[in-house]
Amino acid sequence: MVVAESSSVSQDVLLQLFVILAGAQLAALLFRRLRQPVVVGEILAGVLLGPSVLGWVDTSGGELSQPLVALAELGVIVLMFLVGLETPVKSIARVGGRAFTVAVGGVILPFVCGWLAMVLLDHSSVEALFVGTAMVATSVGVTARVLGELGMIDREFSRIILGAAVIDDVLGLLVLTVVKGIAESGVNFGELGLTLGLTAVFVGVLLTLGPRAVRRAKPRLQAVEPSRLFLLSLLLLLGLAAAASYIGLAAIVGAFLAGVIIAEEVDDFDLVHQTEVLGSFLTPVFFVGVGAAVDLGSLGTAQGVLLVVLIVGLAIASKFAGAGAASRLAGVTPTDSVIIGVGMVPRGEVGIVVASIALASGEFSETLFGVVVTMSVVTTLVAPPLLSVLIARADRRRAGSLDSGE
Amino acid sequence: MVVAESSSVSQDVLLQLFVILAGAQLAALLFRRLRQPVVVGEILAGVLLGPSVLGWVDTSGGELSQPLVALAELGVIVLMFLVGLETPVKSIARVGGRAFTVAVGGVILPFVCGWLAMVLLDHSSVEALFVGTAMVATSVGVTARVLGELGMIDREFSRIILGAAVIDDVLGLLVLTVVKGIAESGVNFGELGLTLGLTAVFVGVLLTLGPRAVRRAKPRLQAVEPSRLFLLSLLLLLGLAAAASYIGLAAIVGAFLAGVIIAEEVDDFDLVHQTEVLGSFLTPVFFVGVGAAVDLGSLGTAQGVLLVVLIVGLAIASKFAGAGAASRLAGVTPTDSVIIGVGMVPRGEVGIVVASIALASGEFSETLFGVVVTMSVVTTLVAPPLLSVLIARADRRRAGSLDSGE
Repeated sequence: MVVAESSSVSQDVLLQLFVILAGAQLAALLFRRLRQPVVVGEILAGVLLGPSVLGWVDTSGGELSQPLVALAELGVIVLMFLVGLETPVKSIARVGGRAFTVAVGGVILPFVCGWLAMVLLDHSSVEALFVGTAMVATSVGVTARVLGELGMIDREFSRIILGAAVIDDVLGLLVLTVVKGIAESGVNFGELGLTLGLTAVFVGVLLTLGPRAVRRAKPRLQAVEPSRLFLLSLLLLLGLAAAASYIGLAAIVGAFLAGVIIAEEVDDFDLVHQTEVLGSFLTPVFFVGVGAAVDLGSLGTAQGVLLVVLIVGLAIASKFAGAGAASRLAGVTPTDSVIIGVGMVPRGEVGIVVASIALASGEFSETLFGVVVTMSVVTTLVAPPLLSVLIARADRRRAGSLDSGE
Repeated sequence: MVVAESSSVSQDVLLQLFVILAGAQLAALLFRRLRQPVVVGEILAGVLLGPSVLGWVDTSGGELSQPLVALAELGVIVLMFLVGLETPVKSIARVGGRAFTVAVGGVILPFVCGWLAMVLLDHSSVEALFVGTAMVATSVGVTARVLGELGMIDREFSRIILGAAVIDDVLGLLVLTVVKGIAESGVNFGELGLTLGLTAVFVGVLLTLGPRAVRRAKPRLQAVEPSRLFLLSLLLLLGLAAAASYIGLAAIVGAFLAGVIIAEEVDDFDLVHQTEVLGSFLTPVFFVGVGAAVDLGSLGTAQGVLLVVLIVGLAIASKFAGAGAASRLAGVTPTDSVIIGVGMVPRGEVGIVVASIALASGEFSETLFGVVVTMSVVTTLVAPPLLSVLIARADRRRAGSLDSGE
């Protein structure tokens, strides 16, 4: 049977999807008006709709129903594809050295802090590794939007932030691959070596041959109508995501690489736009689902609150200190280093994706899932207003010292 | 858990989706080059990929895996929404009377023929009713594309064909509602009356209040960005599809009405385009799934072949005769009546949707499912070339009689 084996399944899916998308829409409306990141609104809508509060979105046993899980999963994959599509590899290359230094500083310190805190609090080593990994990523999307709204996107510190955020994402995905391997088969150096080797080959082959293949096909692709170009990109996306998944990487790694490969050679507004349309339908299912899976009860205990405060504090401090110190090291001025440090704080969607994968591994407690989601939300909310204040003050000071009254 | 409870589920979904969309793409490419309807290509790709031939698309027990069923189902709903969006209610009104006569002729004769043939062949009454229903619909999409390609879309016979096809779809959905009710709870006049009453109220309320509500909201909607307008339409679509499903109608009835309501008041190219993008991802899953569910084995028997020949012949003859005679009755010239009769033959997607719903009811054999799908495919393939020949000949004759050499 094709349409549905029983009409109640389809009714449920339609109704749940309606509730999820309606909640996401209302949240997006509200958060746009409050000038806050829409992602945060969608997650909070999920918390509200989930079993913790209203119970309108059904998450029996901490998961959405199977068809919705598939939609949510496709939503993340499309999201990471979009992140890849909008990753300006070429323009990052120009600030490459400094961005790389900042990225490494912003990876090591948060990872060590997150991991160490969990180890000291007697959590399992897998949990410690996942929390560390979730602290690594930097949300390109959130920061880029804020910098864009302030009209600062072409300033040097902006390019360093964006470059470092992208490198962070890539490093974060690498760390995730290793940690996922450990969660699945323990610390087994043979397995780990194999995973890393496969990753290196997969990423290496894709990034060297991929753009070349796209370049070769370009003359023919330019004759293709936009709608078919979109479907061809979707095929590349699904194929690489499935391939990554089969060799033991996270499917999102393949999705991200598919985006980067296409973006390298195809500069097609239509493609991005069509992918966004698809994403606008699928991605909210993921974020609302994440919110619905947060168990407020387990966070509401004294212990839960302390853990949240600790991890949020560590996430902000370690990223700020790591990225800020590294940019000083790379020769950036103190004022710009502070701006870069703050700009790297938001964990956004990538931290949440890590939390989901951790939860899906079965080796990660629901409490910690809630803690990491909260950490991602708070870091995402805190950075933008701080960033605007800092940039405005730096510009006033600069204007003052130049004695020009712009 | 949100992303996936086990990575193998997501791997399977990604890979199946890749295979399905790749097959659909190749088929679309080929069929576009052959100037044949893409829908037909997608179904044949499904037959090829399904267990009957290659077995690459997994349909254990005749159905796709659950997440793919949900995607296929969303695909039909988006498809019927698009059909609704592109239904020009206002321009149909101008040829309303004649179109209605043609539509009724094109409904009664095929329904009676299909039903009677099945009854005479000793099939169950539910099967007979479903086969009759599948013979009722006329594919607006296929015919409109052919007329458009011939540059004939604004001719009077074109408008009558399109108008009658739309009315056929609506009548077909009504018949489907009744037949679905009978399949679910037998011939129960109380239940049937209730279903028909609810349908009348549902359709009546939506078609009178819906456009008015959209008109009221229009000034505010015009200030809304296109991407949000798209999401609002999706909410209306999901909401009405779920509502239709809850009161016992097919979800596609709600989806179709959502499209008609929006089309009445919103003339937004962006909205159609964005919906098409979403549909281009979801709809092939439905048609490939339909093809994969066709069991060639049961059609390959002598009995199967005879049944296919009988039903296909009846479908073509009854639609041609019913619609053609009715248009003569409505005062159309003989030449144009022949064109109209042929133009109404393609059953296209609606016949297939009926077949899927019939199969899902559990009261419809897999053999008959295959027969009805084949009937939809053949009628869709046969009409377009015949139509172009007829129109060309009619134009030559007209040009000759006017003695002008256009």
